[in-house]
Amino acid sequence: MTQQQTWSQRFESALHPAIALFNASINFDIELIEYDLTGSQAHAKMLAHTGIISAEEGEQLVSGLEQIRQEYRQGQFQPGVDAEDVHFAVERRLTEIVGDVGKKLHTARSRNDQVGTDTRLYLREQIQQIRNYLREFQRVILDIAEQNVETLIPGYTHLQRAQPLSLAHHLLAYFEMAQRDWERLGDVSRRVNISPLGCGALAGTTFPIDRHYTAELLNFDSVYANSLDGVSDRDFAIEFLCAASLIMVHLSRLSEEIILWASEEFRFITLKDSCATGSSIMPQKKNPDVPELVRGKTGRVFGHLQGMLVIMKGLPLAYNKDLQEDKEGLFDGVNTVKACLEAMTILLREGLEFRSQRLGEAVAEDFSNATDVADYLAARGVPFREAYNLVGKVVKTSIAAGKLLKDLTLEEWQQIHPAFAADIYDAIAPRTVVAARNSYGGTGFAQVNKAIHTARNQIRE
Amino acid sequence: MTQQQTWSQRFESALHPAIALFNASINFDIELIEYDLTGSQAHAKMLAHTGIISAEEGEQLVSGLEQIRQEYRQGQFQPGVDAEDVHFAVERRLTEIVGDVGKKLHTARSRNDQVGTDTRLYLREQIQQIRNYLREFQRVILDIAEQNVETLIPGYTHLQRAQPLSLAHHLLAYFEMAQRDWERLGDVSRRVNISPLGCGALAGTTFPIDRHYTAELLNFDSVYANSLDGVSDRDFAIEFLCAASLIMVHLSRLSEEIILWASEEFRFITLKDSCATGSSIMPQKKNPDVPELVRGKTGRVFGHLQGMLVIMKGLPLAYNKDLQEDKEGLFDGVNTVKACLEAMTILLREGLEFRSQRLGEAVAEDFSNATDVADYLAARGVPFREAYNLVGKVVKTSIAAGKLLKDLTLEEWQQIHPAFAADIYDAIAPRTVVAARNSYGGTGFAQVNKAIHTARNQIRE
Amino acid sequence: MTQQQTWSQRFESALHPAIALFNASINFDIELIEYDLTGSQAHAKMLAHTGIISAEEGEQLVSGLEQIRQEYRQGQFQPGVDAEDVHFAVERRLTEIVGDVGKKLHTARSRNDQVGTDTRLYLREQIQQIRNYLREFQRVILDIAEQNVETLIPGYTHLQRAQPLSLAHHLLAYFEMAQRDWERLGDVSRRVNISPLGCGALAGTTFPIDRHYTAELLNFDSVYANSLDGVSDRDFAIEFLCAASLIMVHLSRLSEEIILWASEEFRFITLKDSCATGSSIMPQKKNPDVPELVRGKTGRVFGHLQGMLVIMKGLPLAYNKDLQEDKEGLFDGVNTVKACLEAMTILLREGLEFRSQRLGEAVAEDFSNATDVADYLAARGVPFREAYNLVGKVVKTSIAAGKLLKDLTLEEWQQIHPAFAADIYDAIAPRTVVAARNSYGGTGFAQVNKAIHTARNQIRE
Amino acid sequence: MTQQQTWSQRFESALHPAIALFNASINFDIELIEYDLTGSQAHAKMLAHTGIISAEEGEQLVSGLEQIRQEYRQGQFQPGVDAEDVHFAVERRLTEIVGDVGKKLHTARSRNDQVGTDTRLYLREQIQQIRNYLREFQRVILDIAEQNVETLIPGYTHLQRAQPLSLAHHLLAYFEMAQRDWERLGDVSRRVNISPLGCGALAGTTFPIDRHYTAELLNFDSVYANSLDGVSDRDFAIEFLCAASLIMVHLSRLSEEIILWASEEFRFITLKDSCATGSSIMPQKKNPDVPELVRGKTGRVFGHLQGMLVIMKGLPLAYNKDLQEDKEGLFDGVNTVKACLEAMTILLREGLEFRSQRLGEAVAEDFSNATDVADYLAARGVPFREAYNLVGKVVKTSIAAGKLLKDLTLEEWQQIHPAFAADIYDAIAPRTVVAARNSYGGTGFAQVNKAIHTARNQIRE
Repeated sequence: MTQQQTWSQRFESALHPAIALFNASINFDIELIEYDLTGSQAHAKMLAHTGIISAEEGEQLVSGLEQIRQEYRQGQFQPGVDAEDVHFAVERRLTEIVGDVGKKLHTARSRNDQVGTDTRLYLREQIQQIRNYLREFQRVILDIAEQNVETLIPGYTHLQRAQPLSLAHHLLAYFEMAQRDWERLGDVSRRVNISPLGCGALAGTTFPIDRHYTAELLNFDSVYANSLDGVSDRDFAIEFLCAASLIMVHLSRLSEEIILWASEEFRFITLKDSCATGSSIMPQKKNPDVPELVRGKTGRVFGHLQGMLVIMKGLPLAYNKDLQEDKEGLFDGVNTVKACLEAMTILLREGLEFRSQRLGEAVAEDFSNATDVADYLAARGVPFREAYNLVGKVVKTSIAAGKLLKDLTLEEWQQIHPAFAADIYDAIAPRTVVAARNSYGGTGFAQVNKAIHTARNQIRE
Repeated sequence: MTQQQTWSQRFESALHPAIALFNASINFDIELIEYDLTGSQAHAKMLAHTGIISAEEGEQLVSGLEQIRQEYRQGQFQPGVDAEDVHFAVERRLTEIVGDVGKKLHTARSRNDQVGTDTRLYLREQIQQIRNYLREFQRVILDIAEQNVETLIPGYTHLQRAQPLSLAHHLLAYFEMAQRDWERLGDVSRRVNISPLGCGALAGTTFPIDRHYTAELLNFDSVYANSLDGVSDRDFAIEFLCAASLIMVHLSRLSEEIILWASEEFRFITLKDSCATGSSIMPQKKNPDVPELVRGKTGRVFGHLQGMLVIMKGLPLAYNKDLQEDKEGLFDGVNTVKACLEAMTILLREGLEFRSQRLGEAVAEDFSNATDVADYLAARGVPFREAYNLVGKVVKTSIAAGKLLKDLTLEEWQQIHPAFAADIYDAIAPRTVVAARNSYGGTGFAQVNKAIHTARNQIRE
Repeated sequence: MTQQQTWSQRFESALHPAIALFNASINFDIELIEYDLTGSQAHAKMLAHTGIISAEEGEQLVSGLEQIRQEYRQGQFQPGVDAEDVHFAVERRLTEIVGDVGKKLHTARSRNDQVGTDTRLYLREQIQQIRNYLREFQRVILDIAEQNVETLIPGYTHLQRAQPLSLAHHLLAYFEMAQRDWERLGDVSRRVNISPLGCGALAGTTFPIDRHYTAELLNFDSVYANSLDGVSDRDFAIEFLCAASLIMVHLSRLSEEIILWASEEFRFITLKDSCATGSSIMPQKKNPDVPELVRGKTGRVFGHLQGMLVIMKGLPLAYNKDLQEDKEGLFDGVNTVKACLEAMTILLREGLEFRSQRLGEAVAEDFSNATDVADYLAARGVPFREAYNLVGKVVKTSIAAGKLLKDLTLEEWQQIHPAFAADIYDAIAPRTVVAARNSYGGTGFAQVNKAIHTARNQIRE
Repeated sequence: MTQQQTWSQRFESALHPAIALFNASINFDIELIEYDLTGSQAHAKMLAHTGIISAEEGEQLVSGLEQIRQEYRQGQFQPGVDAEDVHFAVERRLTEIVGDVGKKLHTARSRNDQVGTDTRLYLREQIQQIRNYLREFQRVILDIAEQNVETLIPGYTHLQRAQPLSLAHHLLAYFEMAQRDWERLGDVSRRVNISPLGCGALAGTTFPIDRHYTAELLNFDSVYANSLDGVSDRDFAIEFLCAASLIMVHLSRLSEEIILWASEEFRFITLKDSCATGSSIMPQKKNPDVPELVRGKTGRVFGHLQGMLVIMKGLPLAYNKDLQEDKEGLFDGVNTVKACLEAMTILLREGLEFRSQRLGEAVAEDFSNATDVADYLAARGVPFREAYNLVGKVVKTSIAAGKLLKDLTLEEWQQIHPAFAADIYDAIAPRTVVAARNSYGGTGFAQVNKAIHTARNQIRE
């Protein structure tokens, strides 16, 4: 009848063992132990600070908790299922260490505000780590971009060749996505970093606590203004999982591209052995497992977001046990995003190489300069839609004739429209075409160089 | 062969009619028409401003577009499926109105940046409307709260009576949720209000456009720094749908409570005829349809969020036709959230009444003052965990004896622990119990009055 | 005060107009009208059959309902929002037509069992239509397969060339998926085709109805055995949306492949003008809009599945208004799947062409015959893992030397392992390699021919 | 450079350690080890049976694999991350045990068909276990139902009292849901129990294998007809997770009801100590943790379903590494459903008690007999809709007068309508009202007894 030691004497008989196992969260909430200890130390200090317990008692509690932290780190404190959860496990061990004063720790507090505090401390730190991973990812993107401003690569819409691009420009799109992710996590963080400590079970407490004092000790930005909201709010976890899902969206897009680029058909990159794997049966295979796994793990993070939303739907105030289910999905979401960012950064840094010769050939072998012909005419006074129609016709006849645009004679050009002159050949050369898209945010080399410069400054902040 | 008129002459034969229908988006993107016209007007002004077209041509385009706006508002412009999408429909009508100069409108622009601009203008306005609905909702909450600071209501955890509350305090929890929603939408809005106009198809343009000029005309805060990102980013729609899902989470929780409160068992509120419906067969029924529907509509918004994430997963850069699927879910998400906020606000304002007598009886008939007995002892030096255990025992024997705590004699109290004195009876009276939880954010009346005051100021901003 | 006419006199005041609009389902449940009429006719016949109403009354009701059907088909019956839902709209119109006897129609019935009946009749028919679309899709696959048994195509794992395949074999994988879809919908159908009619509001009825009689009239296979379950079960809708999601998974996979095949890099197919679209700005573009849209619409159907699951989570028995939200997602899921199957079938039948010459070249230019070298050795007694390692080494040195396996001299082969003989060249020729994988279900031509034969028989059933 | 030992000699350098960790699945796919061993034994027997290896070699492989099974069971075989996955771990250990012949095991097989085989063997067994749990759950429902045919309970729609019910009838609704779950899993099982073994990497094999022989050894019903489909199909996992989600929907509905019933307001049941938990701070609390957790875990299973769908969206044929992500969600889905069914069965069997006195009072204190008054009139010739309107009026005036229907005098009744006679009092007594709903599937006692009888027979099968 273990539970009777922790719960009230209201209970006569012990939990059914299968139910005890079903209820227990110690298997996964042990991940929160260091945050729990830190939160409890702040609570103990506040109890002493406000005179709810004596200064001496406060010190005993704080150092007892510190001892548990050391025991945990040294592998000596390993609570089992009978402890129900990390909070009870700590309180029980504390009372073994410091004696009866340990029973005072839970004064003016409930597990409801306690676990909320722990989870926020955990997530605040994880978000910081993820933001660091994003910065690393951005740095690698920039490093590659800097070396490839003038490397050309076909640009696609609908996976059809559209217009040639600077490879740097293409990669910088992912820098921008990561930048939004970084900023978004900053916004989420502001809604994570609010203290529920002192909300009690749901209604606050009769003790003269000082919530701002604990908030300051724990570096929270502010405190929840309403105790019911404080113990039952999980918006921050959902908002985080949405931000995490968006990171995965971006990584999955890059993954898809890397998988395409590594194919025999594209051959835009070479995968290095250190980041590829083989087949158990086909000796020639070198597989892009990293981006495939990242793409697959996207589903997992979306699933956690959905799962958390479902948990919260229609829950009456205030705390309900359903909320215990908030942790595993959150933890796995955090770990997945960190692992994927790390793996993709390694892959970019040392696992692949762009094949610039192949890329240079690719941009010269298609009709992706057709828009430039239309623009050429439009710049010479032909209404855009007319120019566009004319060029469409040229493309059609060229395909039929097995020719590219650069293969047309000047005479042929002028038969199409008298405005064409000898400078058309230069105007549609891949490098010219790319350089010419020099509008703000465009792929023109001058723009791309500016963009890299701006980006470097952004992540220096 | 309608499409040939719009697309290039590359195409020889017309679309299969079933495929034309499958591809067409005009049925739903007509919702964007006013934003499309506004965006096109800004684009035309910029073309003239930069000298890409003449000032006169610019004016013709702007006034032609304004004429379409009037025709649309008067129901005279109703494009059919053969128009494919709203952008082609407008361009075609424009050319009918202004002649060949209409064909110049699309210079230095693509549908990819155009539709991105339209969608952002739409969503920016919708977010503003939703924030206004949130403010209305918060106002009603505050109005009811102000009149019910001292109305008591049972507080629950695990749907078990936990501690009695001020009704105002309970309702203010929803004020706080709405406040977070309001702030979150503000953050989302910053990532919505960025101009993709001028990103072109994917790579920018060869024309000397001025993206900051159009951005200023359209009141965008900034412009996308990378053209590929600009045309293929849908983060803002996903982030909005996550914020919308959280609003629905909050409304679904309130809905669940209202449904409970309206039940025969709770009887905490009376539903008024103006916001309830009957049964087709059971004449006595008065059903809380509004909160039930709101709770049900939660699934729909979660579904749109998930759908949009799925669309984006693994899409290579830049634009892909899959992105056309971003609209219907977004529009329905917007409309659902607006309708639910409006309905819940009406329901709170005029559709229900709290039964304060019943509420007053409810808080006096249970053991939800048990924590106060433990706190009473803890405040008199008994370690909390010991006090808690003692009280648990008292509750158990009281239930067996069919007594409430207030029914115990002083002698009985003192047998439990000598620290009990005559003031125990006052200490556990519902009003005392509520008033005593006067910690910051707690349910004590003084705290609640302060919270209302703060809240009033918050929404005045 | 429209509602008072339909609901009981318990209500004193009318619904708030915004709430009436919020509650009304007539905008979308009008889609059910023909099923509602059919269900009501069966109910009226049963009432007469059991003597609950007279035979004459029964006939009046049946013919009055038939008249409404005609009015609806001719566009004369167009109920507005004031009708609340299709059931009330029909009952009201019926009473206008047949007079007071119309008020007897709802005897021994509730909207709860009525709408459940309508929805099942609707879905049963839609499933049949979808199964027909699947058969059409399978037929096209088989038609193309039959003509391409000996057309070779590279086979991929990890999007890396793995082993060459018969194109027919590749396409038949989609036949198999569609076959599972077809069978799965059959299973779903058995759980759709159960009659809730006569379950009443939740508890059955006091009238001596005959539920098996109405079930037989409506071609239901059986009747719900428990009235509470009958009115609140939506498993069938969820199960359908899961089957629909799986259809979309399959179509999205095929879509991805078609998009890849149509790219400049793969060039495995040519898109025809009738099923492709252009760009508004790039005159050379021919875009695979159909498969892109299909891939995008996948998210929408997944979203509906999730939405419906969310609606049902945690609903207490029996009927709750939340269930009204089951319809729009279901209708859109049905329509989306039908449209996507139709579009993909058209695309396969007349919108694309395999470029067999390019395919033939593709399979000859890589190392996808490496497994066959390992198998060659294994068949000559070398343990598979050793053979595999040897061949891996050969591939590495060949890549370095810029050679394919077929370019090695016999001497070079024998230096690798003495077991190689002159027949190695034939053993690794693409056609030989494909033909040799003649295990059951494999890509060997003999197997593929058998598979086509079996498949033809399957869909003939 | 561990991987070089397993993969081909194509690779020169070892995996980056972080990437090796990222790729490895041994942490979770170790769960499949026994199925992997069984599958490999069948494969080895087939290789010998068909003469691909010698009979002696076959026996060595089979007994070597059996030895690994024993080592695993005794905790002696614990492969680490360097083994990459369970398949390589087993193959490597096998070669240590039996020497070079171990390298022949993988002849004519790939990890792609191997892992598919393992997963199906696993899921087939798990489904059988879940079906057994469902039967246990149904048995408990029936046991309680049998003892409570004549126990009355209020029946609800919209959580408003609607019509009184037999408690047995209410519970039997859950029996029916579980019955559908049981049948649905049977359907799923047919699509799980198909052998992919022998599909090879994607294309079949050049060896003269016998897929039907291994299928028979492993008790598969049939074999995949297409090798590409065989290695890349995950429909069965998705379909299972949908069936699992539906089980959770049903359990979440029952959970919600139990939570309501245990509340102070309903007081329909008493929770026993063995299945309830306390609060860390409120000594009086007894919380329904089990149904709350079950309700919360619903989100988790929905999330896994969604995650798996997302993984599959848009994957080109055949195997892609994304598929490795199919396992954790599936395993957790299986474990969650099993744990929830077990916990709910224990809760029903020994964790709660219906308070029949309270239930008896509840059904007598409301207007849930109003439909019976309308039916009373309808049965006496008043058109139903008129009768319904009349009764609505009576309810309204009775509420105003603070009376229940049973409190009206005969005179009052007859003022409402002359058809009322003295038998009205009996007609609206709760027991009469329940007994009278004797239509098939209704709550009438006779019907309920029949339903219990039928149900007993169903689960005896």
